[in-house]
Amino acid sequence: MKRRMALLSAAGAALVATEAAHAQTPPGAGKERVVIQVSTPDPKMWNQALNYVENLRDLYGANKVDIELVALGHGIGVLKLDSTQGPRVADALKAGVHVSACEVTMRRQKLTREDMLPSIGYVPAGLGQIIQRQREGWAYISG
Amino acid sequence: MKRRMALLSAAGAALVATEAAHAQTPPGAGKERVVIQVSTPDPKMWNQALNYVENLRDLYGANKVDIELVALGHGIGVLKLDSTQGPRVADALKAGVHVSACEVTMRRQKLTREDMLPSIGYVPAGLGQIIQRQREGWAYISG
Amino acid sequence: MKRRMALLSAAGAALVATEAAHAQTPPGAGKERVVIQVSTPDPKMWNQALNYVENLRDLYGANKVDIELVALGHGIGVLKLDSTQGPRVADALKAGVHVSACEVTMRRQKLTREDMLPSIGYVPAGLGQIIQRQREGWAYISG
Repeated sequence: MKRRMALLSAAGAALVATEAAHAQTPPGAGKERVVIQVSTPDPKMWNQALNYVENLRDLYGANKVDIELVALGHGIGVLKLDSTQGPRVADALKAGVHVSACEVTMRRQKLTREDMLPSIGYVPAGLGQIIQRQREGWAYISG
Repeated sequence: MKRRMALLSAAGAALVATEAAHAQTPPGAGKERVVIQVSTPDPKMWNQALNYVENLRDLYGANKVDIELVALGHGIGVLKLDSTQGPRVADALKAGVHVSACEVTMRRQKLTREDMLPSIGYVPAGLGQIIQRQREGWAYISG
Repeated sequence: MKRRMALLSAAGAALVATEAAHAQTPPGAGKERVVIQVSTPDPKMWNQALNYVENLRDLYGANKVDIELVALGHGIGVLKLDSTQGPRVADALKAGVHVSACEVTMRRQKLTREDMLPSIGYVPAGLGQIIQRQREGWAYISG
C-alpha cells in the first residue's frame, strides 16, 4: 500500500508538473498561440486587430508566437480588396501570420475570392476555426 | 526505480492520451458545446449572433452541438418583445438552442418577463452563466 | 501486469478527480477568477464593464472572486483622467479589483501616467496580460 501511494504520489507530482507547465507553456514547441476574432463592421476595430498582431509579435518575438486572425460576419470587410487594412494584412501575411476569411460569410455576402485581398487563407467556417483553436489550447481574443 | 519509471511513464501516457482526447472531443457525449455572449446594443450584432447559431448547427449538425446564447447588458434587447430577431429566436428555441436572458440586467433595466420574447430561458446572472460554461469546457464566442 | 493496471487505474482516478475539481473550482484558494477586456471606444461599453465588475462581486461575494479589468486599444479611455467612469473605477480599486492600463497602448497614444486615473495599475502589454490570465485558468469576458 505504501509503495502504491508512493507511486501514486509520484504520478500526482508528474500531473501537477504537467499542469503547471501547461499553464505557462502551451503545447506546440513552447510557442504562444493566439486566435483573434474580427467580426465587427467598424474599420477602427479592424485597425485595432492589426495592432494586436503587431503587438503580439513584439511581445513574444516573431518566431515565438503563432497568430491567426479570423474574419467573419461583419468583420469580413477587413479582408476585402477595398479594406482600409490592405497593406497591413499583406505585411502580416509576409510575416507568417495566418489570415483566414470565413467562407460561410462569403457565401452569405456573395463574395468570391476575386473580391478578397491576395494571398489570404480561407476556412470553411470562421466560427468553427475559432472553436477548434480554443480546443487546441490557443488563447482567444475577441477583436 | 526502473519499475517506478515504467509505471510513471505509463501514467504519463494515459495523461497525454486524456489531454489529447480532451482537445478534440470536449466532454458531453462527443458533442461540441458553444456559449455565445450578446452584450452590444447594435441590432446588426444581434442578427449576427443568430447567424452564428444557424452556422454552428449547419457546421456540426443540429444534434451534435449544444448552443447557449446569453443576452446581457446592452444585448438584452435581442430578447425583448420588440426585438428585430423575434422570429429567429423562436426558430432557435424550437431547434433546442438554449436562449438565456440575464436577470441582473432585467432588474437594472426594470424589465419583467412580460417584456420579453415568449419561451426563452432566464439565468440569475448572464456573466455567471458564461463563466460557468467556460469552466465546464464550452467554447466561448463573444458575439 | 495486474498490479500495474491497478496502479494505473488509481492514477487515472486521481487524474479524473483532479480534472473534475478543476472544472468546478479553478485553482487559487477556491476563488473564481475573471479577466475583463475593455477595448472599444464606446463609453456605454465602459459603463457596462464596470457593471460587470459590480455584478461579479455581488454574484460570487466580494472575497470570493478575483477580477482584473484590462483596458487597451480604443478602450484605454476608460482609465483616462476624463473618463466617464472615474468614480466607479475608484470604487473598484478600493474594493481590491485589479485595474490595468496597457502600456503599449499608452505609448501608441502618447499618454503618460499623468493622463490617467490615480492609483490604477499598469501592465507592459494588455493583450499579454489577458493571454497570461487565460493560461492561468481565469475565465475571459470580452467587455
